[in-house]
Amino acid sequence: MMEISRRAAEIQPFHVMALLARARELEAQGRRIIHMEIGEPDFATPETVKQAAIEAIGRDQTHYTPAVGLTALREDIAQHYAQTYQETLGPQQIIVTPGASGALLLALATLLNPEDELLLADPGYPCNRWFARFIEAQSRSIAVDEETGFQLNLEGIKANWGEHSRVVLLASPANPTGTLIEPDEMQAIIDWVSTRGGWVIVDEIYGQLVYDRTPYTAIGMGDNVIVINSFSKYYNMTGWRLGWLAAPPALIPAMDRMAQNIFLAASTPAQYAARAAFLPETRTILESRREELRQRRDFLVPRLRAMGWQIPVDPQGAFYIYAQSDHFSPDSYQLARDLLEQGGVAITPGLDFGNHRAQAYVRFAYTTDLERLAEGVRQMEKFL
Amino acid sequence: MMEISRRAAEIQPFHVMALLARARELEAQGRRIIHMEIGEPDFATPETVKQAAIEAIGRDQTHYTPAVGLTALREDIAQHYAQTYQETLGPQQIIVTPGASGALLLALATLLNPEDELLLADPGYPCNRWFARFIEAQSRSIAVDEETGFQLNLEGIKANWGEHSRVVLLASPANPTGTLIEPDEMQAIIDWVSTRGGWVIVDEIYGQLVYDRTPYTAIGMGDNVIVINSFSKYYNMTGWRLGWLAAPPALIPAMDRMAQNIFLAASTPAQYAARAAFLPETRTILESRREELRQRRDFLVPRLRAMGWQIPVDPQGAFYIYAQSDHFSPDSYQLARDLLEQGGVAITPGLDFGNHRAQAYVRFAYTTDLERLAEGVRQMEKFL
Repeated sequence: MMEISRRAAEIQPFHVMALLARARELEAQGRRIIHMEIGEPDFATPETVKQAAIEAIGRDQTHYTPAVGLTALREDIAQHYAQTYQETLGPQQIIVTPGASGALLLALATLLNPEDELLLADPGYPCNRWFARFIEAQSRSIAVDEETGFQLNLEGIKANWGEHSRVVLLASPANPTGTLIEPDEMQAIIDWVSTRGGWVIVDEIYGQLVYDRTPYTAIGMGDNVIVINSFSKYYNMTGWRLGWLAAPPALIPAMDRMAQNIFLAASTPAQYAARAAFLPETRTILESRREELRQRRDFLVPRLRAMGWQIPVDPQGAFYIYAQSDHFSPDSYQLARDLLEQGGVAITPGLDFGNHRAQAYVRFAYTTDLERLAEGVRQMEKFL
Repeated sequence: MMEISRRAAEIQPFHVMALLARARELEAQGRRIIHMEIGEPDFATPETVKQAAIEAIGRDQTHYTPAVGLTALREDIAQHYAQTYQETLGPQQIIVTPGASGALLLALATLLNPEDELLLADPGYPCNRWFARFIEAQSRSIAVDEETGFQLNLEGIKANWGEHSRVVLLASPANPTGTLIEPDEMQAIIDWVSTRGGWVIVDEIYGQLVYDRTPYTAIGMGDNVIVINSFSKYYNMTGWRLGWLAAPPALIPAMDRMAQNIFLAASTPAQYAARAAFLPETRTILESRREELRQRRDFLVPRLRAMGWQIPVDPQGAFYIYAQSDHFSPDSYQLARDLLEQGGVAITPGLDFGNHRAQAYVRFAYTTDLERLAEGVRQMEKFL
C-alpha cells in the first residue's frame, strides 16, 4: 500500500541538503562554518519592496489576483523590458507565477506531450529535468564541457535533435557555471530550432547579474521563445516565491487556463511588493549589490585558482564558480564532505547538477560577504 | 509551431471567469452587481495574522524556508490537530505547500502513475480532475446525486473501483454543494479502499466551516489517508497562497524530494503570518466569522427556496448552495448570464463543477454580507 509512483521514486533530492544539514549540526556544536553552498543571495529584500508589501497588507490587498497576475504588475514587467532591453512586449504576454519554478512548470506543461523531449545541458540546474519527469515528458541531458563554456551551442543541439525533440532549455548566465550564451549564438539556436518546429525556453533568472557586459534578453529573438524570470535572485526576493514568464500571445490562453487550475494565482502580497522592485531607487540598491557580487567574484576566482582549483571558464554572471576538483579527489561529494568536516567550508558537489563528470567538479557560491569569503579561502588553503 | 500539448488543450478554464469579466464590464458602466459567484470569503485577513506578516518582513524573514515548510509552523499545525481534533500527529507528517493546490498536486504526483486512476465526485471542485490530467494520470468522474448528498459513498466507490483505480478524492464539506460525509461513512470508505491497496485523499479546506455540528478530520482513520488543507477559506488568507497536507510518515521523504524540485518552498512571509492563525485571539475572530456565515446560509437557503430554486440537500458547510434551476431554464449557463445581464446578480453555472446534470444546476456563494444578499434576493425575485 505504501508504494509511491515511479515519478516520486525517480525524482532526486538536492544532494547538498545532506551537507547543509551536517553543516547545521556542526554549527549547533559551536563550529564556525563558511557557507559557499547556498544559491541564495545574502542580501535582504530591498526596503522599498518590503514597504510596498507592508502597505499592501495594511490595505487588505491580500485576496486572490487573476491567475495570470495583477494587471499593474504585468504592465510594470512589460515596461521593464522596454526600459532595460528596448523590447516591446504587451503586458498580456506576461504571466506572473509562483517563482520561476511555477513559470517553468507552466511552460513545459504547455509545450510537452509525454512522447516529447526536452533538451538540456549537463551540468545544469538540477530541477529542470525533474520538471519534465513530473509531467511524464522525456528529457535528454546533453554533456557540455569547457570548450563551449559549459553551454549548449547550435552544433550540440543539431547533433542531439531527434524525432521527438521539441523544446531546448537554455540558461544565460547558467547555474552552476556562471557562463553566458552570446547573443548571436542564442539567435542562431532559436532560428534553427524554429525550422524544426521546436521551442526554446530561456532561463533568464540571472540575466541581470552579469559583470562584464550589458544584459540582453532572448524574448525578441523569435516567436518560438519563452523567457523565464524571477524576483528571487537579482531582486533579492527569494522567499516571496514570485517569478514570471514572457511568451508569444498565442500561448497565453492555454497557460492562463492551466494556471487557473494548478496554481489559482501567485501570492498577492508578493505581487504588490514586486511592483516596487522596478522603482528607480530600488534599481540603485540592486545595482550596488551587483557591483558587490562582482567584487566577490573578482576576489574569489584568482584565489581559488592560486590554491589549485581549476576554473576552466571565467564565470561572467550569476554568483557561482564551477571548479574542477579531481586532482584533489576523484569523488567531489566526498571532497565536499571532507572540506566541511575538516575545513569548515560548505560547497556543493557536482552531483547536484547532472551526471557528466559530476564527480570531478564542485560549485562555489559567492553568496556571502567578502570577509567570510576571505576566511573560507584561508580555511581551504589549510585544508588542501 | 504554435501547437500546444494535448494536456494544455484539454484543461478547461473556469467558465465563471467569462461571467466575472462581464460583471466587471457592467460595473465599469455604472451597474450595481451583487456577487454571489466568488469562492472567496469577503472577510479581510485577521489583524493578528497581518501583524505577524508585517513583523516577519521587518525582521527580514523573507529567505527560503525548507521545502516542507518552517519547522515552527509544522509544529503549530500538529498542535492544531491535537487541540481541535485530539489527533496526535508528528510535525514531520505535515508539509506546508503553496496553497491547497500545491498540496493536492504533490499528493497526486506521489501516488499516481499514468496508468492509475483517480476517482472523484461529479459535481465537485473543477480543478481536481485537471490536476490528474496535468501529471498524465487517469481520472474517473462518478455522477453523484441528491440521494447521497452529492457525495461519493462506499457503494458508489465499490461499483466504480476498477483494475487501475488507486486513489479516491473526497471533500467534506464539498464545493459546490456544502454537504458533508458522515464520519462513519468516511471510515467505511477508508477501510474498504485500504483492502484494495488504495488511498483516500480528503480535502478538508472547508473542514472547520460547518454550522450544525462538530468538525472532524479523517487523518486518524487509516494509514492510507492524506488530508489536504488550506489557510485560504477558514483562516481568510486566500491571496497568501498557503496550504498544507498531512500524510503517513512513509510518504514524506518522496514528497519532500518533489517539493524541493517543483516548488522549492512556500512563501516565507505567508508562513510566518500563518503561525498567528492558530492564536486564541485569531480563533475568536474566525469563529465569529463562521457564525456570520451560518447566519447568511440561514437567511439565503429559505429565500432561494421560496422563490422557486430547488435545493435538494441542506448545505451544512463551506459557503455554497447548489440549486436546481432547470425549471427556470434548461441551460444554467444561459440562465446565469441572463441573471447577470437583467438581474444584476452573478452566480456560477453548474458547468464549472463537472458534466453530470451540470446544465440543471447553479451555485450560489454566500461570500458577501447579509445586506447585499438581501439585495440580491430582491433582484432575483424581480428577474424570475
